[in-house]
Amino acid sequence: MGKKVAVLAVNPVNGAGLFQYLEAFYENGIQYKTYAVSETSEIKTNSGISIKLDDVITNLKGHEDEYDALVFGCGDAIPKYNENAEKQFNQDMLAVIKAFADKDKIMIGHCAAAMFFDNLGIVDGRKVALHPYAKTAVKGCIGTDEKTVVDGNFYTAQTENTIPELIPEILKALK
Amino acid sequence: MGKKVAVLAVNPVNGAGLFQYLEAFYENGIQYKTYAVSETSEIKTNSGISIKLDDVITNLKGHEDEYDALVFGCGDAIPKYNENAEKQFNQDMLAVIKAFADKDKIMIGHCAAAMFFDNLGIVDGRKVALHPYAKTAVKGCIGTDEKTVVDGNFYTAQTENTIPELIPEILKALK
Repeated sequence: MGKKVAVLAVNPVNGAGLFQYLEAFYENGIQYKTYAVSETSEIKTNSGISIKLDDVITNLKGHEDEYDALVFGCGDAIPKYNENAEKQFNQDMLAVIKAFADKDKIMIGHCAAAMFFDNLGIVDGRKVALHPYAKTAVKGCIGTDEKTVVDGNFYTAQTENTIPELIPEILKALK
Repeated sequence: MGKKVAVLAVNPVNGAGLFQYLEAFYENGIQYKTYAVSETSEIKTNSGISIKLDDVITNLKGHEDEYDALVFGCGDAIPKYNENAEKQFNQDMLAVIKAFADKDKIMIGHCAAAMFFDNLGIVDGRKVALHPYAKTAVKGCIGTDEKTVVDGNFYTAQTENTIPELIPEILKALK
């Protein structure tokens, strides 16, 4: 049986990033379920389109073993993250990311993904690709200027625009 | 005042293609309105996510003058197009594309977009980028193996994966 991916999307999410992963999974027969980092499963893209995901992040807690990989779908929610850091859905997001990493799942993400991985102390010593703004914020991992980096079970892309180069690596890992 | 774009999305639509345009427009302050080629404004991506667009294609008919450009958002609806060619929303789509072209608007699309442009006789003699499967189907235009082609007011990309190379050209035209 093929591997299964939990795809997290913040609210609002960058639709170009999110759907590059989803369409690639769909076209390659990789199972996935989408989780909104929000109180409801209906969220928006940065570009203002309402999208209805499969479930909310809270319902992923405790179900990490059902998946082989996690995708962090970044978006315009992140520059405002600090205003909402205490919200339950963001706390649940951190708990879920940590649980996936502790179970050595495949960890995938672009833009600020590596910053969250770093804050959680799950990517220490590894190289990552990440948004130039986030590069100054990481401490335990090695922030690079690469478009994409694969280091161990961590698959990171600098921004949504560099995801195309990461997709073949992700597909290799998930097949 | 900046230019305004009507974005058509077939049902189902390739989300990676659609949102590469939308997020680029959003980030560059270009106005856009999204139209579902469907009876309702809620459609699905190839990858199975419900998305709610601004309006339906029928309501764009007769309003072409309000826009400077048209995007054709391709998707898995197209391989099944012939089964649904007689449906009103598909007839309306063709009428709208023709009207935009007749008014010399900027015409943008990937994958099968150039095939529809060709069938409507609006791109005769021009070079286009298009899906390899569609290349054999075009008659009046010059189907190429290029990743992207700009010829006059026609901006075409081979598939959703080559849209990143077309975006800078589109933005130049729309600013």
